[in-house]
Amino acid sequence: MKKAYIFLADGFEVIEALAPYDVFCRAGFDVKTVSISNKKQVAASNKIKVEADFLISEVKDFDQADLLYLPGGYPGYENLGNDPKVGELAKKHYESGKILAAICGAPTVLLKNGIGFGKNVTSHSCCKDEMSTKYNYTGNFITRDGNLLTCIGAGHSVDFAICLAEILGGEAAVTKVKKGMELK
Amino acid sequence: MKKAYIFLADGFEVIEALAPYDVFCRAGFDVKTVSISNKKQVAASNKIKVEADFLISEVKDFDQADLLYLPGGYPGYENLGNDPKVGELAKKHYESGKILAAICGAPTVLLKNGIGFGKNVTSHSCCKDEMSTKYNYTGNFITRDGNLLTCIGAGHSVDFAICLAEILGGEAAVTKVKKGMELK
Repeated sequence: MKKAYIFLADGFEVIEALAPYDVFCRAGFDVKTVSISNKKQVAASNKIKVEADFLISEVKDFDQADLLYLPGGYPGYENLGNDPKVGELAKKHYESGKILAAICGAPTVLLKNGIGFGKNVTSHSCCKDEMSTKYNYTGNFITRDGNLLTCIGAGHSVDFAICLAEILGGEAAVTKVKKGMELK
Repeated sequence: MKKAYIFLADGFEVIEALAPYDVFCRAGFDVKTVSISNKKQVAASNKIKVEADFLISEVKDFDQADLLYLPGGYPGYENLGNDPKVGELAKKHYESGKILAAICGAPTVLLKNGIGFGKNVTSHSCCKDEMSTKYNYTGNFITRDGNLLTCIGAGHSVDFAICLAEILGGEAAVTKVKKGMELK
């Protein structure tokens, strides 16, 4: 079973974090949310309160994850970017060749941690200039460059999650997801 | 300011409930989640735990709402359909001419409460036969018939929320939402 972790920091974008959670559940993956603070309740950028499955300190098997996922949302992505543990985990995961995903403002977490410089990426347009200093900014909705996947923003969360589900679970997983969600 | 309430029952579909929450916040509406039980923490169909803004017993101004929204998800939509208070509120709201929205399996809540019989509706395909007994089932992604709006399922949650935001807030609200979410 494929294993995915989604990091939650206060100020996360709720669709960006929970659409992949939902899609990965539907795909049959073992997906868990991880609070990067010392409390499980995390408040989204729109103040919705979600209880994470784990605290970051509780997870001992990040090295077993097939996918690490960084949601955007303000100031969620800045909180992720300011957390050295998140940066260290993301970098190690990426450098081991496994799928690292970031959406909206979260590609700046890659920038802050020296991950994949020179690669093709996208991000929210508000981060374009910053990202362009170290990456080839595509401005596409979704960009894949090897094991680095980035997405422009919340409106494309479901498509991005399905793209990731297809990479990890293949066509069969995606067919099942799309049927349940009434996507043709 | 437009006011919207989203009902949450255990087993709700997380994207179907929280995409409109997110979109309506971005549109500048006063949107609140309402737990239909006596506890604020509600578990989605995929077990994500969300804290509702209010218990249904705490809300005294449902008659001031511009929109009531019923998410699907199993068994969330059955729990909504089995709750007489939800049915009563939805019926009163609809009959006052205000916007009532239901997605996925939640159009069965309309069916159970005798709301809008004969109207054009859509719903998840698994409810097609049931819905067809009292409605003209379109099978479209989104169907509007007067003040009754229905949507086929989770994959169309963002589009449905934007459609509702446009009805309530006009083009200006939607332009702002789309810009933030990077929807062209």
